Amino acid sequence: MTIESDVLSEIKPTPEESAEILAKARRLQEAAERYLSERNIKAKVRFVGSVGKGTFLRNPDIDLFILYSPKIPRPELERLGLQAGKDLIGGIKMYAEHPYTSGKFEGLDVDLVPCYELESAEHILTAVDRTPFHADFVLSHSDDRIKDEIRLMKCFMKGIGTYGAEPDVRGFTGYLCELLVIRYGGFIGALKAAADWKKGAQIWIGNRGKPLKGALVFYDPVDPNRNVASAVHEDTLCKYIHACKCYLRSPDRRFFFPELRKLPSRDELADTWSKRGTGLVSVSFVKPDIIPENLHAQMWKTQYGIGKKLNEYGFGVLRAEHCEDEKEAHIVFELERFESPKLVIHKGPPAYVENAESFLEKWKDNPDGAPYLDDGFWMVVCPPQFPDAASMIVKEAHHSGVGRELSVESMTVRGQKDVIDSMDPSVLAQLFDPKMPWEN
Amino acid sequence: MTIESDVLSEIKPTPEESAEILAKARRLQEAAERYLSERNIKAKVRFVGSVGKGTFLRNPDIDLFILYSPKIPRPELERLGLQAGKDLIGGIKMYAEHPYTSGKFEGLDVDLVPCYELESAEHILTAVDRTPFHADFVLSHSDDRIKDEIRLMKCFMKGIGTYGAEPDVRGFTGYLCELLVIRYGGFIGALKAAADWKKGAQIWIGNRGKPLKGALVFYDPVDPNRNVASAVHEDTLCKYIHACKCYLRSPDRRFFFPELRKLPSRDELADTWSKRGTGLVSVSFVKPDIIPENLHAQMWKTQYGIGKKLNEYGFGVLRAEHCEDEKEAHIVFELERFESPKLVIHKGPPAYVENAESFLEKWKDNPDGAPYLDDGFWMVVCPPQFPDAASMIVKEAHHSGVGRELSVESMTVRGQKDVIDSMDPSVLAQLFDPKMPWEN
Repeated sequence: MTIESDVLSEIKPTPEESAEILAKARRLQEAAERYLSERNIKAKVRFVGSVGKGTFLRNPDIDLFILYSPKIPRPELERLGLQAGKDLIGGIKMYAEHPYTSGKFEGLDVDLVPCYELESAEHILTAVDRTPFHADFVLSHSDDRIKDEIRLMKCFMKGIGTYGAEPDVRGFTGYLCELLVIRYGGFIGALKAAADWKKGAQIWIGNRGKPLKGALVFYDPVDPNRNVASAVHEDTLCKYIHACKCYLRSPDRRFFFPELRKLPSRDELADTWSKRGTGLVSVSFVKPDIIPENLHAQMWKTQYGIGKKLNEYGFGVLRAEHCEDEKEAHIVFELERFESPKLVIHKGPPAYVENAESFLEKWKDNPDGAPYLDDGFWMVVCPPQFPDAASMIVKEAHHSGVGRELSVESMTVRGQKDVIDSMDPSVLAQLFDPKMPWEN
Repeated sequence: MTIESDVLSEIKPTPEESAEILAKARRLQEAAERYLSERNIKAKVRFVGSVGKGTFLRNPDIDLFILYSPKIPRPELERLGLQAGKDLIGGIKMYAEHPYTSGKFEGLDVDLVPCYELESAEHILTAVDRTPFHADFVLSHSDDRIKDEIRLMKCFMKGIGTYGAEPDVRGFTGYLCELLVIRYGGFIGALKAAADWKKGAQIWIGNRGKPLKGALVFYDPVDPNRNVASAVHEDTLCKYIHACKCYLRSPDRRFFFPELRKLPSRDELADTWSKRGTGLVSVSFVKPDIIPENLHAQMWKTQYGIGKKLNEYGFGVLRAEHCEDEKEAHIVFELERFESPKLVIHKGPPAYVENAESFLEKWKDNPDGAPYLDDGFWMVVCPPQFPDAASMIVKEAHHSGVGRELSVESMTVRGQKDVIDSMDPSVLAQLFDPKMPWEN
């Protein structure tokens, strides 16, 4: 048994499981069609996603699309789609760019999504109108073997942490996984190709559209002017390429099923930190009532903004991690130093402007040295504005580019040992020694 | 008595002193004319400088120019001029751009300089051909009162440390002092005008040439395309403007005759430094056998270059001073911190290049944390290359832009208390508390 066949036997539903899922899906489809015809609504019903494409793993979510005529105005499409979701699967409205409902049918999780039925994917009316064309493309380019290879690829991507376009992954969508397997004829073929990719790699099947830019570009075969890989961040791309090389060199089931990292105790963490001799500061925000994708995007933005500010003030960010618990979202920074220097330079006005006099007046008895001239500016040496990184963040966070819906009023800033005592040990372990998932 | 008349009475030679100096100068002139006529050399003799212009202070140097015909080739002019200097004043050759000799005549210091006698100053053949025209201009635009005001101005500039174009002052030449007094009708008039100057101030008498740029621009009245103030550095300009404002607000003889700063003992300095909690590092070079101007220019360059390097490595230069003793030239830096942080970021190759593998191989068992990806680059956290500022300079000085004739092999680097124990206390006092000369 190869690693892959071993993994596949674990993730692929048995024939009995498959039959049961497909039977439930068929009954859902019949119920939906009956529902529409009883109401005289002209619309088609179809499965997209992994069930529609026959690439589902165990316990799949089901994506049911209702395709309405383009003659129906958009507000009407939304109303009809949400109502159908409520009636058919007891669905609750979800707040994406496109309205849909999430609910249950015979125990399966179902997303019910309204869209328009169009001739081609090149001039879509709503964000999801392209999806049925994607399903068609995958179905027409895959046989049973390819479908299994796609299952492997998705499991691999999940295992190494590169699966999904959401802001905390910035990675590969399911459709992109499918296209990669189709393009390179299988899982291992796709891995071998990726091992040779450079930044900005350009990939296509059949026709290539006008040149596009991105960390990775995969021209959508159903709309060649669109990059299927537009969500893939350079770091995610590098991680994937690296994982491909590592896996090809020594295949291991841990790439598919990463083990949990052995967690250090707080005492061990305190000991590690004391040996490192670095600074630690954390910033915690009460979680706002927004969807996770939005929260994660704002946490990235905040991590970047406060990290930049810490560097500007000379604390030297070594690494940063963020995480969340039930109530709060946290960012932890390891720093070159936690304390500010005893004295710093304070830059004053150019020597020839009016208010130079008031600067000189203000600093004339400065205990740390008289004002002096440097490149036409008055300067003075004095104690820093903030004694340490934590007090800097407390005062400067409100103009450090904190995410729009994170409240600086709800912010808790901790420094040094307080960080060790309060933060999730797995996050601190990752901060001090950033391992890849398959290395745990 | 005003401060100025008081000062003037101290610096202006008495009528007897003047008569004696002028009598000696006349005898020197006669000796030179006799010397030239005996050798059948067609050349004129004249005094330029303060004696030629009647603006001399006590114990002036004498500048005697010999003006040769432009028909004489340059090598011949140099040979004749140097020979005359040797014969007339026992002069030794000086190494400026233009050859001249320095010697003595009846106890006075004399510079004897050959140049060409030209119709106008706009197309000169050697660097000093313009000087006689400068003397003519000052003579024709000054009376006895103006000459006294010029004496005051020069004494003021010397006192505040802005007199001279050499690299360690980067200031105002004697001719520029004369023009300022002429332009503004007197010493106080010139000070009042300067108090309103902005950076790039443009000044002229009569005709202004094509626009020139500089911290200060004074169009040379004998060649309006030339900036007499081209040597004035922005910081010297600011210092002068500041001194003018301070003097006008509260005149004091200390502007003309600064007192020596009260020197702290080494124990006091050590105490001050310990309270400041800053870092100290000094760099000393054995003085090369070059003229002082050249050495000073190279010390500025070196101070700038090493200061930049210290900032790059995060030591944070607060202030720097340089000085020299008989054998060595020294630069002292006060720093935000002397020690490097315990851990820093080491940036590796982009993740998709060949040698990424060897980077990962090298750092795979790094005790301070595994390599990680950041914006497409491999990174690793590790101890810094240099434990402190002194060891950084020892290793990095040779590519920090040290002056060409300063030998890195002759360099001594000292850190912390060693600096307090070895450096000139007046330089350390100025480093910790940079006072203006008139504030001592």
